[in-house]
Amino acid sequence: MAHRAGGRALSLMRGRLRLPGLAAVVGGCAGRGQARLGSSGAAVQRAPRTAGAEEADAEVNIRKKTFAEVQTERLEQAERTILIKCPSKLNEKKLLQYLSSHGNIKSHFLFENRGIHALIEFSEKNSIASLQDAVGIPSAVEHHVVPFKSRLFTFMLKNPVSQAAEETPVHLSPQSHIPVKDLIQKLCHADSISSQMYILLNEYQLTEENIRLRFLACSLVRDFARAYFPDSVVRPFGSSVNTFGKLGCDVDMFLDFHDTQKRATKMKKGPFEMEYQMKRLPSERLANQKILSVIGDCLDNFGPGCVSVQKILNARCPLVKFSHQPTGFQCDLSVSNSIAIKSSELLYIYGCLDSRVRALVFSVRCWARVHGLTNSAPGNWITNFSLTMMVMFFLQKRSPPIIPTLDQLKVLADDKDMHVIGGYDCSFVSDLSKIKPTENTETLDVLLGEFFEYFGNFDFRKNSINLRKGKEVNKPESSPLYIWNPFEQDLNISKNVNQPQLEKFVAMARETAWILQKEDKTQRMINKEPWGLAALMIPFGKSNHNKMKNRVKGIGSETIRSLLDSLKLNSASSLQKAVEK
Amino acid sequence: MAHRAGGRALSLMRGRLRLPGLAAVVGGCAGRGQARLGSSGAAVQRAPRTAGAEEADAEVNIRKKTFAEVQTERLEQAERTILIKCPSKLNEKKLLQYLSSHGNIKSHFLFENRGIHALIEFSEKNSIASLQDAVGIPSAVEHHVVPFKSRLFTFMLKNPVSQAAEETPVHLSPQSHIPVKDLIQKLCHADSISSQMYILLNEYQLTEENIRLRFLACSLVRDFARAYFPDSVVRPFGSSVNTFGKLGCDVDMFLDFHDTQKRATKMKKGPFEMEYQMKRLPSERLANQKILSVIGDCLDNFGPGCVSVQKILNARCPLVKFSHQPTGFQCDLSVSNSIAIKSSELLYIYGCLDSRVRALVFSVRCWARVHGLTNSAPGNWITNFSLTMMVMFFLQKRSPPIIPTLDQLKVLADDKDMHVIGGYDCSFVSDLSKIKPTENTETLDVLLGEFFEYFGNFDFRKNSINLRKGKEVNKPESSPLYIWNPFEQDLNISKNVNQPQLEKFVAMARETAWILQKEDKTQRMINKEPWGLAALMIPFGKSNHNKMKNRVKGIGSETIRSLLDSLKLNSASSLQKAVEK
Repeated sequence: MAHRAGGRALSLMRGRLRLPGLAAVVGGCAGRGQARLGSSGAAVQRAPRTAGAEEADAEVNIRKKTFAEVQTERLEQAERTILIKCPSKLNEKKLLQYLSSHGNIKSHFLFENRGIHALIEFSEKNSIASLQDAVGIPSAVEHHVVPFKSRLFTFMLKNPVSQAAEETPVHLSPQSHIPVKDLIQKLCHADSISSQMYILLNEYQLTEENIRLRFLACSLVRDFARAYFPDSVVRPFGSSVNTFGKLGCDVDMFLDFHDTQKRATKMKKGPFEMEYQMKRLPSERLANQKILSVIGDCLDNFGPGCVSVQKILNARCPLVKFSHQPTGFQCDLSVSNSIAIKSSELLYIYGCLDSRVRALVFSVRCWARVHGLTNSAPGNWITNFSLTMMVMFFLQKRSPPIIPTLDQLKVLADDKDMHVIGGYDCSFVSDLSKIKPTENTETLDVLLGEFFEYFGNFDFRKNSINLRKGKEVNKPESSPLYIWNPFEQDLNISKNVNQPQLEKFVAMARETAWILQKEDKTQRMINKEPWGLAALMIPFGKSNHNKMKNRVKGIGSETIRSLLDSLKLNSASSLQKAVEK
Repeated sequence: MAHRAGGRALSLMRGRLRLPGLAAVVGGCAGRGQARLGSSGAAVQRAPRTAGAEEADAEVNIRKKTFAEVQTERLEQAERTILIKCPSKLNEKKLLQYLSSHGNIKSHFLFENRGIHALIEFSEKNSIASLQDAVGIPSAVEHHVVPFKSRLFTFMLKNPVSQAAEETPVHLSPQSHIPVKDLIQKLCHADSISSQMYILLNEYQLTEENIRLRFLACSLVRDFARAYFPDSVVRPFGSSVNTFGKLGCDVDMFLDFHDTQKRATKMKKGPFEMEYQMKRLPSERLANQKILSVIGDCLDNFGPGCVSVQKILNARCPLVKFSHQPTGFQCDLSVSNSIAIKSSELLYIYGCLDSRVRALVFSVRCWARVHGLTNSAPGNWITNFSLTMMVMFFLQKRSPPIIPTLDQLKVLADDKDMHVIGGYDCSFVSDLSKIKPTENTETLDVLLGEFFEYFGNFDFRKNSINLRKGKEVNKPESSPLYIWNPFEQDLNISKNVNQPQLEKFVAMARETAWILQKEDKTQRMINKEPWGLAALMIPFGKSNHNKMKNRVKGIGSETIRSLLDSLKLNSASSLQKAVEK
């Protein structure tokens, strides 16, 4: 297959977005950063949200923090944070004045989630204790509440009618992404596919506010765990922290007893020993199941707004699912999962290294979702995690590579980066500044097309994807799609994917590669039809007739696809042959 | 029936025991008081336990504390207390030296309960935090424990063989009463029935150490509740605190949210109001059920030594039963039961007013148990509580009365004693010094016989027992035995008792009254057979042949009883006629 003739030159848009994307990530992942948050007493109406480019300059100089540093900061910040349900008619300034009698408010924002809510970050943790001490238990139903005192409050006006007059317009931070059809509209106004990809990233990625809410959700769950295990921490992992999270994605969190266990058996001086009497169980798994079970019950019975609590304790990784209404998140709570957090850190590093990484991942995942290749329900679909790993692998394979292999990251690791977890080597560099920036200058336009071409032609029958080595490796077993778990090297992260789903992916990738190759710059403006990335976000069967016809005129890929679908060919190789005819 | 010719003169034994009985009660109920507890560093062998008379002098001058004062002190003391499981070979002094590096030890004692345990009371609560900080998590099974850090520890010798040589003899405080057959032996050596009754009281009543353990059990459960409800308190009620508890009886405890609810809705200044978001439930009962359910699960899954946890949530008073191995108690945990605590206080007052009260109750209850009139299993049996109330009523009816009626106690109440709970008037005086001591000087010998005679002749068919008024009242409904709940005046505390059980009680009371009347002072020493109270503690069918024959010679009551048993006569009145023939 012929290579496309050169990439489109970097647009100004891309140039401007690239840096803030990176800076925002390391300062806490979001592209629409902290500048948006109000400070104490300030309750001004803020500008409607834009692509975030205007915030770039302020954030350029933020140094690249390590994953651990960001997590520690965020967790600590969340401990100083409360959430208040507000009346629909609100004078934001008065709320802040009222609260500031308990301490300095460092930041805050408002959002809509079954009513208006305010997230308030105090400068000092003890301001919360002061507030809690002054707040009452719901009085109307005094005897029918579970008197668990959390950091969730309700703010009320005593005389709503007279006070409503005082209301001032408030800015509400969006906590969900725009619908695909609105996204397509926005994409059409861009001047390059690269720009389109950054716009998509900007619309879909987690915001600063949303990340704070996620850490708050973890911190509120921690309050339940801490009740019995004072040294425990509830940490978010996966998409909430790996820089690849999309607005609206679930919050994966786990209960970390790490510190508790490190403290073991200190008091051993003299001829005596003293230890805690503790419930002993025949396995760690059983202990974790019991702990999760009880915490699940606590959330269910005591936690305000914790609903639909579901215990899934017999899964490989026992967990409790619940819906946290105050923050609006669907949460999955499991117990200490050190490898999962390493996996999040690895993606965090990749996401921070080059802004093209996240832009490409978000585009590919959005494309996969539109075309039914991924699905939020469990099944034989490719997962977002697998897709992300495929993009990483693709970026490792570029020449020059855009991101390093895991083995290369391991070489850069220093002593404190050395971690062996459950017998698996999870060592890699944590300090981003030690990683040499890529010399690759390919545009996202090029990378997007090449990605689909690369996987449209990948020999899935024979080869597996190995991010540690950054090269194709013979498949160790016969799963249709084999992607090595980067740390637990005996596991295939895409074991769930069956042959038909893989074939669908390959067929779609080829179709997409072909569309991108045929993309006619001059045509798209005249037609006023979705073009570039926008065109890829419409299910192929559903795009309008003209567009369709244009496509079919090409090499009749639509016909071929239908044919393939009906034949249900069962190997990527035969599929390849069919297309090459 | 003829009155016995005069009471036996007060023996020296009785004179000496009477005061300590009282003093120990007000200082915390037990007859073998605080003097027994070691103080810091002291690990001397203590004298074997005696009737406790030698401790009388030290306690005489303790002022009569109110029930609330005693509870508050005990609860606070329990918060400063820990429990340590020790090796069987122990050098007590070294253990104390070791612990005193964390703070001053105010008192301690050792006891046997599935191994040797030490209860340690620190002077300061923060000594426990210091100790907890230094103590390790069991290391051998590091990953298979539930890391809940309680106040239960295990003390180990690193080198048991060499250190065993250093062991010193230790005194173990008994936590259970002697078997009935041993009791009978002891009783036979006394010189009067009064003395016998005090010996029984002394052997069976809760000890200072046992009371501490009970409060510690509550305090440990409180740690679970406090995790979510920081202002909550777990309070013992019933036999653990009402001065009528027997060694080995269950610990009834309830979770008190009282303080939490009093604090409601303080922050109401200005035009705003702020309240906690809390789980709301359609009824208080449902809230209590949910809270008990979760705390039950916590105890079951996290609580070291909490076993056989049983949730009985659909009972009139929802509760969680569990066995607390570290203290050796069977516990019943319910939620806020203000009337139950008022009931405990009332009995506490009666128990403190005159030492004869507790001595008579313990004797009657022991008698009832031996003869199968009471049973620890639920059923149609008379409960210990009902029996106790019958004794109280009997003592109110003496002339002059030995204890006042509840209405008289209410007249003495001041403003702070006024309590209306759930619409029921629970007001009565709390200050014991306001109650005029009785002028009644009857001996226990007399009172015991009169008790059985009184209830052997009571018209249960027509009359009910009302402690508020201190007189028989027409039965408001047809339950065989009707004893007015002193506070919830529409409830009969002995509703469970059926006609056959009541008849059995009446028959036994008559038989016993007759035995006591026939009691031959001169005979008993010659025969070397159980006499007086001892004779009453042998099931009538089982006493030896000679004794039996003597009895039967009387009026053939045994024959009559058999006859009655076989006829299953169904009213006390017909029974009465049968006996009177």
